[in-house]
Amino acid sequence: MSYEKESIKEFCNLVASGNPTPGGGSVGAVVGALGASLVEMVANLTIGKKKYEEWEAEMEKIVERMEAFREKAFGIMNKDIEAFNKVMECYKLPNSSEEEKRFRKEKIQEALKEAADVPFELCRLTSNLVDDVLLVAKYGNKNLFSDAQAACELCRAAFNIGKANVNINLKLIKDESFKKTLSDELEELEAKLNYSLKVFEEIASSIQRS
Amino acid sequence: MSYEKESIKEFCNLVASGNPTPGGGSVGAVVGALGASLVEMVANLTIGKKKYEEWEAEMEKIVERMEAFREKAFGIMNKDIEAFNKVMECYKLPNSSEEEKRFRKEKIQEALKEAADVPFELCRLTSNLVDDVLLVAKYGNKNLFSDAQAACELCRAAFNIGKANVNINLKLIKDESFKKTLSDELEELEAKLNYSLKVFEEIASSIQRS
Repeated sequence: MSYEKESIKEFCNLVASGNPTPGGGSVGAVVGALGASLVEMVANLTIGKKKYEEWEAEMEKIVERMEAFREKAFGIMNKDIEAFNKVMECYKLPNSSEEEKRFRKEKIQEALKEAADVPFELCRLTSNLVDDVLLVAKYGNKNLFSDAQAACELCRAAFNIGKANVNINLKLIKDESFKKTLSDELEELEAKLNYSLKVFEEIASSIQRS
Repeated sequence: MSYEKESIKEFCNLVASGNPTPGGGSVGAVVGALGASLVEMVANLTIGKKKYEEWEAEMEKIVERMEAFREKAFGIMNKDIEAFNKVMECYKLPNSSEEEKRFRKEKIQEALKEAADVPFELCRLTSNLVDDVLLVAKYGNKNLFSDAQAACELCRAAFNIGKANVNINLKLIKDESFKKTLSDELEELEAKLNYSLKVFEEIASSIQRS
């Protein structure tokens, strides 16, 4: 499956349909990819401008990172669908004998862990993406500040969507140590994201004052 | 132009490129369309379920509204590009004689007003979309609550992106009465959105408790 090849209109149709996939998790990944695309645009429109010469090398690195980010985000979009379908398949496993019951439970738990890992990866990626949003907001072409602002909004949205999707899976996972590790790591990522969002707000107000 | 026919991958490429359009405004409209698609999915997966029978008629109306929303959002996505290009063209008008200067200024101001109206429309639409997010969150299929949550995040993001894009245009507009009207209306829409987001949080915490 490579849903990134679908048109925007058709992807929306597929999301909107009475089929649970693609759902919120995949949409969150698309939103992250859109955010990275805006960051890349600001970097591209900074490169080659005399005024921003000093930051040219950094902007070129950002362009590379954003292209890699988008590929990863599309991977997450597709994996989210596979992971969800796998959970659903496990729920359909035979459930009569004690052995079948135990086997089914195990398989469901395994699938749920995989399904939690996918949106967790989106959270990890977007909490890092904000660093590049900050770089283009601070050192990139000032005429495109509202695009950096839009990218910032999309990081927040993609992160929160990822978090909600990690949490619905965690609710059903019994392995307490897995749950604790993922929750703790998610909390750390969220703290990092919130700090970066605060820094962004400061940049935004200093620009509004100038 | 109908960018909704582009693949997700190609649309991201177009945003990321060193061309200022499609930019944040268009991306905001796509994000709104993705939010509406998620709301529609929740409604579609509520329809036909005995448990939610009472809300079936309302869910069917939501499906219709979301399809209309998406078409409008795609319209905004395309109009944002046209409006931006029009502003750019006006800046290129001849600027030598006094008459040319006056004519150019007038044309720029007209184009800026149009360019402010487009993201304002996105704000108006998304502040209404949240009402339908609330309906599916409250009365729709509870198994899809995280998708309603994702839709809620996307409404907030699309609204804020729209707002940032209204504001960059307002900064350059000289007509004080136009500025005041749009700012006041935007403030009202934001108050409505924030109230709805608060209600959503309450629904979310009551679901987490149950």
